[in-house]
Amino acid sequence: MQRVKSQYQRFKQKTHIIIYGTSTKAGRLFDFILLGLILLSVALVMMETVASFDQKYHAELVFLEWIITIFFTLEYLLRILTITKPYKYLFSFYGIIDLLAILPMYLSLFFLGTSVFSVVRSLRLLRLFKILNHPQFSSQSIQLRQAINASRGKIVVFIYFVLIITILIGSIMYVVEDNQSGFTSIPASIYWTIVTLTTVGYGDISPVTPLGQFIASFVMILGYGILAVPTGIVTAEIARKTANPSPKCPLPCSGCGTEEYPPNANYCPQCGQAF
Amino acid sequence: MQRVKSQYQRFKQKTHIIIYGTSTKAGRLFDFILLGLILLSVALVMMETVASFDQKYHAELVFLEWIITIFFTLEYLLRILTITKPYKYLFSFYGIIDLLAILPMYLSLFFLGTSVFSVVRSLRLLRLFKILNHPQFSSQSIQLRQAINASRGKIVVFIYFVLIITILIGSIMYVVEDNQSGFTSIPASIYWTIVTLTTVGYGDISPVTPLGQFIASFVMILGYGILAVPTGIVTAEIARKTANPSPKCPLPCSGCGTEEYPPNANYCPQCGQAF
Amino acid sequence: MQRVKSQYQRFKQKTHIIIYGTSTKAGRLFDFILLGLILLSVALVMMETVASFDQKYHAELVFLEWIITIFFTLEYLLRILTITKPYKYLFSFYGIIDLLAILPMYLSLFFLGTSVFSVVRSLRLLRLFKILNHPQFSSQSIQLRQAINASRGKIVVFIYFVLIITILIGSIMYVVEDNQSGFTSIPASIYWTIVTLTTVGYGDISPVTPLGQFIASFVMILGYGILAVPTGIVTAEIARKTANPSPKCPLPCSGCGTEEYPPNANYCPQCGQAF
Amino acid sequence: MQRVKSQYQRFKQKTHIIIYGTSTKAGRLFDFILLGLILLSVALVMMETVASFDQKYHAELVFLEWIITIFFTLEYLLRILTITKPYKYLFSFYGIIDLLAILPMYLSLFFLGTSVFSVVRSLRLLRLFKILNHPQFSSQSIQLRQAINASRGKIVVFIYFVLIITILIGSIMYVVEDNQSGFTSIPASIYWTIVTLTTVGYGDISPVTPLGQFIASFVMILGYGILAVPTGIVTAEIARKTANPSPKCPLPCSGCGTEEYPPNANYCPQCGQAF
Repeated sequence: MQRVKSQYQRFKQKTHIIIYGTSTKAGRLFDFILLGLILLSVALVMMETVASFDQKYHAELVFLEWIITIFFTLEYLLRILTITKPYKYLFSFYGIIDLLAILPMYLSLFFLGTSVFSVVRSLRLLRLFKILNHPQFSSQSIQLRQAINASRGKIVVFIYFVLIITILIGSIMYVVEDNQSGFTSIPASIYWTIVTLTTVGYGDISPVTPLGQFIASFVMILGYGILAVPTGIVTAEIARKTANPSPKCPLPCSGCGTEEYPPNANYCPQCGQAF
Repeated sequence: MQRVKSQYQRFKQKTHIIIYGTSTKAGRLFDFILLGLILLSVALVMMETVASFDQKYHAELVFLEWIITIFFTLEYLLRILTITKPYKYLFSFYGIIDLLAILPMYLSLFFLGTSVFSVVRSLRLLRLFKILNHPQFSSQSIQLRQAINASRGKIVVFIYFVLIITILIGSIMYVVEDNQSGFTSIPASIYWTIVTLTTVGYGDISPVTPLGQFIASFVMILGYGILAVPTGIVTAEIARKTANPSPKCPLPCSGCGTEEYPPNANYCPQCGQAF
Repeated sequence: MQRVKSQYQRFKQKTHIIIYGTSTKAGRLFDFILLGLILLSVALVMMETVASFDQKYHAELVFLEWIITIFFTLEYLLRILTITKPYKYLFSFYGIIDLLAILPMYLSLFFLGTSVFSVVRSLRLLRLFKILNHPQFSSQSIQLRQAINASRGKIVVFIYFVLIITILIGSIMYVVEDNQSGFTSIPASIYWTIVTLTTVGYGDISPVTPLGQFIASFVMILGYGILAVPTGIVTAEIARKTANPSPKCPLPCSGCGTEEYPPNANYCPQCGQAF
Repeated sequence: MQRVKSQYQRFKQKTHIIIYGTSTKAGRLFDFILLGLILLSVALVMMETVASFDQKYHAELVFLEWIITIFFTLEYLLRILTITKPYKYLFSFYGIIDLLAILPMYLSLFFLGTSVFSVVRSLRLLRLFKILNHPQFSSQSIQLRQAINASRGKIVVFIYFVLIITILIGSIMYVVEDNQSGFTSIPASIYWTIVTLTTVGYGDISPVTPLGQFIASFVMILGYGILAVPTGIVTAEIARKTANPSPKCPLPCSGCGTEEYPPNANYCPQCGQAF
């Protein structure tokens, strides 16, 4: 009995290293197979929705999807079993995604059409960052995330303004175009305003009255200027992070350890230490 | 009589704190209810213009709008009564918006279709900035506004140039496309030019002659470069404001006079002067 | 005789000050009337092409245009007469535009439809910069022009690359879409490629085959990245010009007169002069 | 015999200088003729695909193309003969392009329609950079390439994220629009998502359900922010390269070690050291 338990313990340890680790050969191999299967499963779900393809290969598609789902289920169970604090994994970002990746397929046994939601598996592709573990990419990824986080405050303020402007312009266009050419309601006009301000411009709704076209021209030129703002915000932050790239040679101040000083500083701005 | 007056004074004081203030619990509660009602009223005006929805719930929509309008009217009157210099509020930005927010509904009693203009209430959403009073957001908002103000001069010059270019290209396209495919007049051609230069591209008007398509290609590539200019202007200003965020007392260094140091510096990075 | 000549001389002097100068009251007034007439004449040419408007007011439009043309002709002649070196004006940028502004109207007496080219008058609006003479705007305008000039080299290299890519992608799409859905020739496919790369996206030509749509997706994401390059080039230059704003305190080096040194330089990078 | 060989040697030398060199007059002339022929041949291949043009001038087009192809073939052979290590040229970037430029025409003798691929000749236009050899352009080109290379890491991470988002949004829209209005499969929906996120907006597929339009609005505003990221990345790198343009020997100042000085500085702006 004791031996069985210790054998089980060893199995748990080995599996843990393979599933969670990336340093051993087996661990690496497992990760690459996993990534391949995720890619394959996302492709399968996509192809299932292409009518002409699905009609020919429906059985094969479903069969393959079930195989992958069972593999993912086993992997999910092993991840729970081989970890010391399973609840931490269960409620982590990746834990929830791993569950959402297998759930739709089982639900499709009871409800029609839910297998489409298996596409949530594409989120599992985010694991790539864990798998690669390439210092260059992870540092780039950190820089990007820092820059985007730093600009979040300004972006929120900006989008709030844009939404108010959007409601106003949408209402004006609704009154001006007077129910013509797709401007059938204020929400539809707001939809048009967003399509125009973001310079997407489908053309499914477009003004026909001269006054409407004049206002539309104004909105487009406004969109020009408005488009510049988020770009400016993000660029300024990225430029800052790129100018003092903390990963490359982030020599912290020998006096106080801060890494935040202008690139051509002669003295530490935090503690006065001469460089 | 004296007592009634003093009671009225106390009521005025209390109401003033609730309506204008944001530091007391009651003041905060009032602000959040107000914000909710503004959002609701904007939504109501929008839904009224959706034909299928309006046919079903017209009576309910109008009823709710009147309730909100009466609430806004009471609030407007209280704001005037409880302030010592009412004319200052009346002619302030928010005072005018508050009036415009209730006027259309009363006018709709006499004129048909004016209730649509109640959508101007969305401008009242700008109060959010007063309500939140969150230091992070207000500083971000100030930085953004400063950057946009600083770039106004260049943007005006730029848009003036773009408009002249637009008139010229519009005229050329009118001659080249010769009344075909929507280029029926110079104003229409200018409208097309703006749609193209801003990369919106509805496709309601698009060139069909080879020469017209060639010029259009040129305009698009020009639009590429032109689009870069406002972005460059705004980005440069935001980068400056982000690099030396002036809101927190931008005192030049007493040692060397530089204004370029991190906001929380204790020593000048240029000359080592302790702050 | 002598007196007549001296009178003519005085007339010439006075007229010169009014037409060319902006410092006297009369000179300013003349400039504003001129600007108004330019705007009016551009508007007239535009309205003439709007069929519904032209049918009603054709006679009035033509009459007004002739009046403005005669005024412009007089102004043109006076400009030549009252200047000491007329050929300098005649072959200057503004001189040529002033001639082009009146020529189409006279040519319309002999050839049909040339009056449309009167729209070249819009170029005369560039005079605004001379008229305003506002230090803020002219300095902004100079900064912008400097930044755009400085980035010209990179922009030329960039557009050259983009054109080669455009030809290649256009050819590939022509082969892939195989004459379907508007891809009728390589020039047409190149037109589509430019429409897509610049994110204009009219939709008059759009891929229908799955492979075509896949390549189109790739082109769009490429356009994303490509769009970033001119913006980056212009932004970098504007940021530089904004960082050392030569207009504000453009103290040229007392040693060699250069104005090109980093904002926090202690010594002139050109001649070593200590600041 | 010896004389013939030495004559051949001299011919080889001379030809080498003309074909590969750009410093002699003959070499320059050859390069400009070559560039002209490349442009002409690309134009010919294009015009061949314009049905109306090809029907009239098919014989002339084919004749001219054969002449150019033979010229290119001769040039290709001479390039191989007059170089000491031919295999280096054969497998170089330009060597492969030069071969691909002549191959399609010969293949068109055996297979129908391959002559279209002659358009690969447009890649030969890249030779322009060798021909011009203008220091300004080549330094600009190097700066651009360095900036784009430096931002590659971040761009790869960014596009990877965008693709995952694209798959998710595409799937959601497929479910929401439920096979209406072109959202016939997940791949088609992903195509629409890319068209929208990149702000191209053809309008061949556009949402019709209110919920679909609401999600589309969200996607467009997201595209706004997302568009800012690559621009920010590239701008930050270009700004860095423009600020310290490394191409012209970026030797740090021997006095103070700074690398931040204008490219044509004679003295260090930081410490006054003469260069």
